[in-house]
Amino acid sequence: MVEVSQMIDSDVFLAFSTYATIVVLKMLLLGPMTGYYRMTRKAFSNLEDTTIHGRNEEDKKKFLRTDPDVERVRRCHQNDLENIVPFVVIGLLYALSGPALSTALLHFRVFVGSRFLHTHTVAYLLPLPQPCRGASWIVGMLTTFSMGYQLLSTSLVL
Amino acid sequence: MVEVSQMIDSDVFLAFSTYATIVVLKMLLLGPMTGYYRMTRKAFSNLEDTTIHGRNEEDKKKFLRTDPDVERVRRCHQNDLENIVPFVVIGLLYALSGPALSTALLHFRVFVGSRFLHTHTVAYLLPLPQPCRGASWIVGMLTTFSMGYQLLSTSLVL
Amino acid sequence: MVEVSQMIDSDVFLAFSTYATIVVLKMLLLGPMTGYYRMTRKAFSNLEDTTIHGRNEEDKKKFLRTDPDVERVRRCHQNDLENIVPFVVIGLLYALSGPALSTALLHFRVFVGSRFLHTHTVAYLLPLPQPCRGASWIVGMLTTFSMGYQLLSTSLVL
Repeated sequence: MVEVSQMIDSDVFLAFSTYATIVVLKMLLLGPMTGYYRMTRKAFSNLEDTTIHGRNEEDKKKFLRTDPDVERVRRCHQNDLENIVPFVVIGLLYALSGPALSTALLHFRVFVGSRFLHTHTVAYLLPLPQPCRGASWIVGMLTTFSMGYQLLSTSLVL
Repeated sequence: MVEVSQMIDSDVFLAFSTYATIVVLKMLLLGPMTGYYRMTRKAFSNLEDTTIHGRNEEDKKKFLRTDPDVERVRRCHQNDLENIVPFVVIGLLYALSGPALSTALLHFRVFVGSRFLHTHTVAYLLPLPQPCRGASWIVGMLTTFSMGYQLLSTSLVL
Repeated sequence: MVEVSQMIDSDVFLAFSTYATIVVLKMLLLGPMTGYYRMTRKAFSNLEDTTIHGRNEEDKKKFLRTDPDVERVRRCHQNDLENIVPFVVIGLLYALSGPALSTALLHFRVFVGSRFLHTHTVAYLLPLPQPCRGASWIVGMLTTFSMGYQLLSTSLVL
């Protein structure tokens, strides 16, 4: 019997494991970030969440509203889900298809870099104008397509 | 050549496989649940879905509305996606990194338990006040962060 | 040590790899499609995205609106996320549990076919009435449940 733990000795797999973990944890952190914005902007979706801010029923209901900053973080979270999930799936299969370490590292680094840039431009943390958010989104997507293309061209079973 | 089917002989991998399947099927069931609420509350998003409730065009359009209960289930589904996807990705890599079975089982059980509790509080199935939904969300997230931390501390290739 | 690249020699795993890549790339393409509809319908969510359409601040703000077609593509993307993520997770574990190649291929083909049909009916590309979108969604879901059931019945470790 083969030890599963040996599988992780492959350098490409280890690299994928590291970058995937980092980018997925980054995505997960947008959850508490939404919560933080909901608390400071006092904009909630569920009536029972407003208890600490309002006392009576009428007071509470006015906190059931949308806020531009909360929606901005939520769209960022959604964009992360839509782009990081394909990266993780295709990246895992790509890492298992035995690519060259340098090519694989290039793909992983460009993707993770583009997603961190995307989040920073969304959060206005970096003073970069609009083309930056769009460009980082497109670069990340092209990386995933590139891996998908190599995966399908090396091993296609229909 | 190594048989892939042998990979699943590892106890940790088998445990991950079981818990991941259960929690993902639970998430998938929220789809039909949204459909059920849409039918009973008569609140739809697409004009062609309202055919069985309304006869003429004007009659149909009034069913294109949002309903608090439908939105509640949809937010639960979204929260599941945002939390279960990171668990599955990091949990899979964690299971392959060769952790102790008891530690791994603890992580998987706490996470799956917290997500079931979260869904139950969302659906008002259990008469628990608000801190419960928030707490189950945070406990699940901490479990994923704990696995991610152990993963990065044992094998980091940048 | 076992070469990870040997893992991909299994026929079932290669077939899963192909179908998962195709269906995930299809899901990823809905991102640019949303962007295309946003540009042609001039309906944006972020103020900085409207720069090329409006000149002054007031002019720009009127493009911050929702559009039925944009929302339709976004719901399709969301439905893809909610259904393709469970397929990928359960399909991967199922492919590793050593099923018969013919049974596995049947599941993968039916699922991927149902998702392409679903996207086509959403985009009005095919002139099919409503039961088709609902039916393709349900068929895809049943495929995932079938794989999950077989997975849990062959290997359950709690």
